[in-house]
Amino acid sequence: MLIVQKFGGTSVGDLERIQNVANRVSETKKAGHDVVVVVSAMSGETNKLVAYAEHFSADPERSEMDMLLSSGERVTASLLAIALNAMGHSAVSMSGRKAGIVTDNLHTKARIEEIDPTAMHKAIKEGKIIVVAGFQGVSLDGNVTTLGRGGSDLSAVAIAGAIKADLCEIYTDVSGIYTTDPRIEPKAKKLDKISYDEMLELASLGAKVLQNRSVELAKKLNVNLVTRTSFSNEEGTLITKEENIMEKPLVSGIALDKNQARVSLFGVKDRTGIASDIFNKLAQNNVNIDMIIQNVAHDGSANIDFTVPVGDLSDAKKVVAEFIESGDITEQSYDEKICKVSIVGVGMKSHTGVAAKAFTTMANENINITMISTSEIKVSMVIAEKYAELAVRSLHDAYELDK
Amino acid sequence: MLIVQKFGGTSVGDLERIQNVANRVSETKKAGHDVVVVVSAMSGETNKLVAYAEHFSADPERSEMDMLLSSGERVTASLLAIALNAMGHSAVSMSGRKAGIVTDNLHTKARIEEIDPTAMHKAIKEGKIIVVAGFQGVSLDGNVTTLGRGGSDLSAVAIAGAIKADLCEIYTDVSGIYTTDPRIEPKAKKLDKISYDEMLELASLGAKVLQNRSVELAKKLNVNLVTRTSFSNEEGTLITKEENIMEKPLVSGIALDKNQARVSLFGVKDRTGIASDIFNKLAQNNVNIDMIIQNVAHDGSANIDFTVPVGDLSDAKKVVAEFIESGDITEQSYDEKICKVSIVGVGMKSHTGVAAKAFTTMANENINITMISTSEIKVSMVIAEKYAELAVRSLHDAYELDK
Repeated sequence: MLIVQKFGGTSVGDLERIQNVANRVSETKKAGHDVVVVVSAMSGETNKLVAYAEHFSADPERSEMDMLLSSGERVTASLLAIALNAMGHSAVSMSGRKAGIVTDNLHTKARIEEIDPTAMHKAIKEGKIIVVAGFQGVSLDGNVTTLGRGGSDLSAVAIAGAIKADLCEIYTDVSGIYTTDPRIEPKAKKLDKISYDEMLELASLGAKVLQNRSVELAKKLNVNLVTRTSFSNEEGTLITKEENIMEKPLVSGIALDKNQARVSLFGVKDRTGIASDIFNKLAQNNVNIDMIIQNVAHDGSANIDFTVPVGDLSDAKKVVAEFIESGDITEQSYDEKICKVSIVGVGMKSHTGVAAKAFTTMANENINITMISTSEIKVSMVIAEKYAELAVRSLHDAYELDK
Repeated sequence: MLIVQKFGGTSVGDLERIQNVANRVSETKKAGHDVVVVVSAMSGETNKLVAYAEHFSADPERSEMDMLLSSGERVTASLLAIALNAMGHSAVSMSGRKAGIVTDNLHTKARIEEIDPTAMHKAIKEGKIIVVAGFQGVSLDGNVTTLGRGGSDLSAVAIAGAIKADLCEIYTDVSGIYTTDPRIEPKAKKLDKISYDEMLELASLGAKVLQNRSVELAKKLNVNLVTRTSFSNEEGTLITKEENIMEKPLVSGIALDKNQARVSLFGVKDRTGIASDIFNKLAQNNVNIDMIIQNVAHDGSANIDFTVPVGDLSDAKKVVAEFIESGDITEQSYDEKICKVSIVGVGMKSHTGVAAKAFTTMANENINITMISTSEIKVSMVIAEKYAELAVRSLHDAYELDK
């Protein structure tokens, strides 16, 4: 097989850990696979360099930050190549440029435009292990760029797509994707497989492991992603296309998002386009809206409820205040003590009664559901924050996710 | 003027010193000059990275070392550019590649083959201060290379030549070139100007400041070099072509080399080509010969004396032992307690009596001269090491170098 292995900052945090990574890569190579490794900077290095830059400027140029920060991954890449060569392998490090990773020129958050795999193909053909400096590329005008948060994962996925790797393994300090947060439900089980779409819906479960950006790219490029830990030989979780998952579980996991607030608007004037006006204005102010419900009151005016991330709440308040000033809305209120619980599973597509079971479970626990939204593979409910853990454990039980 | 300013590792050793460098560059720019800055890695960084590599391998691949070590200069270059921008200038950092520095592919000791100044010319035209990562370039096959010891000086000189800079200032912790080592003769004076050839002969005086490689390149490219300190505003020493020096001093400086040993061969057989045999064999064994004298003895056999660097002495002994074995030489002896004192000055070309004064000065101090060699601009004498400092001070006095 042709395998891409990506190791994050903590996995290459010191020389001993880099040696451990070398051992693992070596085993993979010795098992007969071709390996392309993607590495992050040693943990702490990037923060150190950012602090250096901030010593000189509150707002350093993004292009200079890219020149500065891209050095960290180059150091790890060359050290790992040196370690692998010392073990008798033939390894070669490549900068993002050398690996052919071409991006746009949005410095510090560049997007990969294309990958020219010529140099990598040549090295693989020569039997070499390639160690690519993650997180970085080169713009069409020849300058170093970096890909922003989670950038090394993106490098790995994009490379796996470009060289048509059989597998792209993302090594972190977490052993995979669980049916729910094990800190809330100790009976949570690690999933063997999960589809891209489920993973995207379960973002809150996987956020510490994989950013949605990387999952979306893997889906687009049809890359088989595996998240696993670099600190043991435990198998991880395969994230793949739905067709590759034979037994589709009704529910794969329960996600919890406490970072939500509810905004309630009362006495919204009954005129055409009022809802559109409000939500357009919110969008212009970069307020992310998640769920929306609207009720018509006796007097013909409407009440509108919606949820926003807690961080967007103050912006939302300002926008709503303008509509109250103009008389389009009578009153507003807020609730930050809410949370969103979601059940996710591709099996829902072909089974009925999944949502009903969720509502029954909540009713049995006397938990009031204030908002509901559903998609083909997800049911989300807004409930009072104090019931968050109880709801997660009850649902985990109800769908027998510990079995 | 168009000025290249190069700052070494100690000059950019911490964030405060980088700010000092930014201040100096800023002043130069404000005085109306165009500036291209060349920087080394922060002192200590390169050694740290070398130690990291040696943790994994006693003999790391040179190409990986280049990938690893070239990161240090990139960090300094971007930090300095950020500092200059924060001061209101428009600065841009460039890697060796971006600056157009093309080398051969002798990793860790590459030679600059050519410089494509297009990107630098463009940035200068736009009024930008350029900060180039020194010590590095890119090979024709696209890999990062480094230039070996003193590499950042070479970068600076080569860039100055390529962009036809009026001046190339090398900033170190030493304020310039002195008539002799001030630790031996406190009356030593800093030279305002010195020719390339004198500087090359005075290598031992300038070794801590400038390597001969850089002086030779400056001579070839006709670059006006200035060595000065980054820790004060003191003027430095201009190293330029002889024609630019109006008043040519008889003697510019006194150099001392204690790192020499004398090898004496007795009873060297009187046959054609014997000297050639001996010195060829020494050359094949990488023994560097400096001075040679030969005396014919009463019996027709010869005595040959030569000097070698102390580090080459054991190799020299082995070679000579073979000739003793074969009967070509009767006996050998060694003396490590010698030193070489040289007086250097372009004025010697047109004045007689310079060497005679040196010999008289030695005689007056009862110092025995055991070997002499001369060139157009230099007289070197081998004497007992114990007289080294006395000889230097006496000669410094005799040629009135403190005036």
